[in-house]
Amino acid sequence: MAKQSITAHKSWLPNANHPTTDFPLTHLPYGAFTAEGQQHLCVAIGTHFLDLHACATSGLLPPTLTESCQAPTLNLLMSQGHQAWALLRRTITTLLHADAKPEHKEKAEAALHSIAGATLKKPVYVPNYTDFYASIHHANRVGQLFRPDQPLLPNYKHIPIGYHGRASSIIVSGEPIVRPIGQSRPPQEEDQPNFLPSSKLDYELELALYIGEPSALGIPIPISSAAAHIFGISLLNDWSARDIQSWEYQPLGPFLAKNFSTTVSPWVTPIAALDPFRAPASPRPATDPKPLPYLHSAEDQKRGNLDVKLEVLLLTKTMKANKLEPLSLSQSNAQDLYWTPAQLIAHHASNGCNLQVGDILATGTISGSAETSAGCLLELTRNGAQPILLPTAETRTFLENGDEIILRGSCESPGHPRIGLGECRATILPALT
Amino acid sequence: MAKQSITAHKSWLPNANHPTTDFPLTHLPYGAFTAEGQQHLCVAIGTHFLDLHACATSGLLPPTLTESCQAPTLNLLMSQGHQAWALLRRTITTLLHADAKPEHKEKAEAALHSIAGATLKKPVYVPNYTDFYASIHHANRVGQLFRPDQPLLPNYKHIPIGYHGRASSIIVSGEPIVRPIGQSRPPQEEDQPNFLPSSKLDYELELALYIGEPSALGIPIPISSAAAHIFGISLLNDWSARDIQSWEYQPLGPFLAKNFSTTVSPWVTPIAALDPFRAPASPRPATDPKPLPYLHSAEDQKRGNLDVKLEVLLLTKTMKANKLEPLSLSQSNAQDLYWTPAQLIAHHASNGCNLQVGDILATGTISGSAETSAGCLLELTRNGAQPILLPTAETRTFLENGDEIILRGSCESPGHPRIGLGECRATILPALT
Repeated sequence: MAKQSITAHKSWLPNANHPTTDFPLTHLPYGAFTAEGQQHLCVAIGTHFLDLHACATSGLLPPTLTESCQAPTLNLLMSQGHQAWALLRRTITTLLHADAKPEHKEKAEAALHSIAGATLKKPVYVPNYTDFYASIHHANRVGQLFRPDQPLLPNYKHIPIGYHGRASSIIVSGEPIVRPIGQSRPPQEEDQPNFLPSSKLDYELELALYIGEPSALGIPIPISSAAAHIFGISLLNDWSARDIQSWEYQPLGPFLAKNFSTTVSPWVTPIAALDPFRAPASPRPATDPKPLPYLHSAEDQKRGNLDVKLEVLLLTKTMKANKLEPLSLSQSNAQDLYWTPAQLIAHHASNGCNLQVGDILATGTISGSAETSAGCLLELTRNGAQPILLPTAETRTFLENGDEIILRGSCESPGHPRIGLGECRATILPALT
Repeated sequence: MAKQSITAHKSWLPNANHPTTDFPLTHLPYGAFTAEGQQHLCVAIGTHFLDLHACATSGLLPPTLTESCQAPTLNLLMSQGHQAWALLRRTITTLLHADAKPEHKEKAEAALHSIAGATLKKPVYVPNYTDFYASIHHANRVGQLFRPDQPLLPNYKHIPIGYHGRASSIIVSGEPIVRPIGQSRPPQEEDQPNFLPSSKLDYELELALYIGEPSALGIPIPISSAAAHIFGISLLNDWSARDIQSWEYQPLGPFLAKNFSTTVSPWVTPIAALDPFRAPASPRPATDPKPLPYLHSAEDQKRGNLDVKLEVLLLTKTMKANKLEPLSLSQSNAQDLYWTPAQLIAHHASNGCNLQVGDILATGTISGSAETSAGCLLELTRNGAQPILLPTAETRTFLENGDEIILRGSCESPGHPRIGLGECRATILPALT
């Protein structure tokens, strides 16, 4: 059964059929790259990507998709709706399938480029960025550090806590992160605050949900149709300066501690590719409150979650110099989130707030219950109190200049080819002083 | 001296020379309206506005400005920079001046429309919206309600507190506000929260600063050049559902309590028009900390503030039925803010966060020290404890359906014509239930 299914999804590109590839024929994530000074959309397959602009030019795509596939970002395709998304996915699947017509295959081969060495671009214009706080394990552990008497606030199990992030500073994997300078708490209340490069720079392992189907201002989105608003997902690193955050965040939440940069991975996995990897909502203890009706649907409880395995890796300058492999810092899974993607969307629009094409709703740090599944250094090192020992004999409490953080994600399910979300990586540069 | 100066700014449009007009020749705020199914930019003068699209077509504007003046929003003009802004302002001033050439005047007259009856549109595409908390009087009074032991948090006098708002739901004056539905605190901690139409719907009187000159990611903006990033200002109403806010805002700040709608006034006052109304930074008690160096410049302290008088008015359904005038709820002045516009900008970019053309930085509720100068009902009614008695014998703690809120602003200075920011108004509609 498993074998037959995998054979059914065989591509004429041999490396796309390798069991460890991130990008088999069943995945087909969208990205963007620069060709002749223009940003072109593309689709990953095996070790390569297919230039959609070129495919449209050579007549391989339906005419209704020409304009959107020759646009610099995915937003136009997203705004064409589900039928267009499905049509493009079917067309590309046929084109790259082992049974593709030879004349199509020949034209497609001319539009193929190797991923290795290519510079990938940000594939979506993101008009609005919201960050949630959907991992109860993250909320609990962070709460224990700062409010040991009440780690989890009374609202947490009732309401998907979220806040607005900064859309302008969302950048793509590979672009460096300049260490931010900012105010932090003065040593004594009567002193002036410090204004220095952050000494508690952290990453946060998250998933981005890209909104494809917008909603109108004033009109809530019912939970039953919320999941249909998702175009796709990618990895997201919500860089955080903990020293800036702890000084500025009362009473209106994080601001400069977060908005200096947010990194997304270059590949947007279409939601259709995640169908085999759906999972039930994370089980709640019987003593936990039931979600209010606007956050509850039987279908969402049954399969609204995404079974995405996640990993954070660190590669320091010294590790690179010694040609060491990146060190895995933690492993978690998106299905451990307290709230499903549909619950985040239904909550966001419940007051009539409108969602726009290309919006990102991020999950918040994805941590599991185990100590080794904490999705940020704040948790892993208990705010710096427990340094991590690296194979180079270096230690880390927070990130140092030259450190590279790599997020990875993948989905596995019996009878289906594994898919990988690619990598979301960036290196820390010194502050501009 | 004063008389001469006013005569020097005489327009051929008689009502533009009336001493009470909001829009004399020295103001020339930008707006947008719909003409032949297209959004056109325009400039207000007296009781009229000049269609910039039509002016460009009839050759009244410099060729370098044709494209930006025929765009649907101001963003292209904003991105052309200071010289273009000054050139357009000079051109329109000459065109509408009493000494204008007859052939120019004739063409301009053909492009004039009456403001009365016109539907004005949102003139700027706003990519990012940040809301500050720059009024210490507001922060103090709100703090007294919720933290009587420590009304002002330790960070307030050091750091311009701000958070990211929602850009997608910014709408223009005149569009209605649908009362949001949302979760509020359960009666007892073990109960389920309420999920009902907000019963504590409030307005917030603010100014919007529109960013015209962008900044690059990773590069802070020095305080000395921060003010030069402002294209113009308008009125802004940051509608707030206090019951939703008090339940959701810990630990990450306001979210659904604010993002259902934010209203901006239709006219963007160019920063050049505010030159005669600059004021020193609000004086600080000697016991207050000095701003850190990145927030301090002598020039900004001397004239970085804006002397804009502000007013909030209420018009209920019953008042309308009885043909009563709107009731003035409070009066305040932007020069009482604890932080100047340049300080807000320099702080926002101090960590390398990039500002984009069209971004709004809002001041936060502008309240003065007097009880009658509180810029929201939360302060005026002490969170509903002290209802306001209206001339119709109605009372108000928070807004009722059918209530219309009107924000007004104006600038006066000896020797200069008065200018007015126009009105920012909207009526509350019942929740969709």
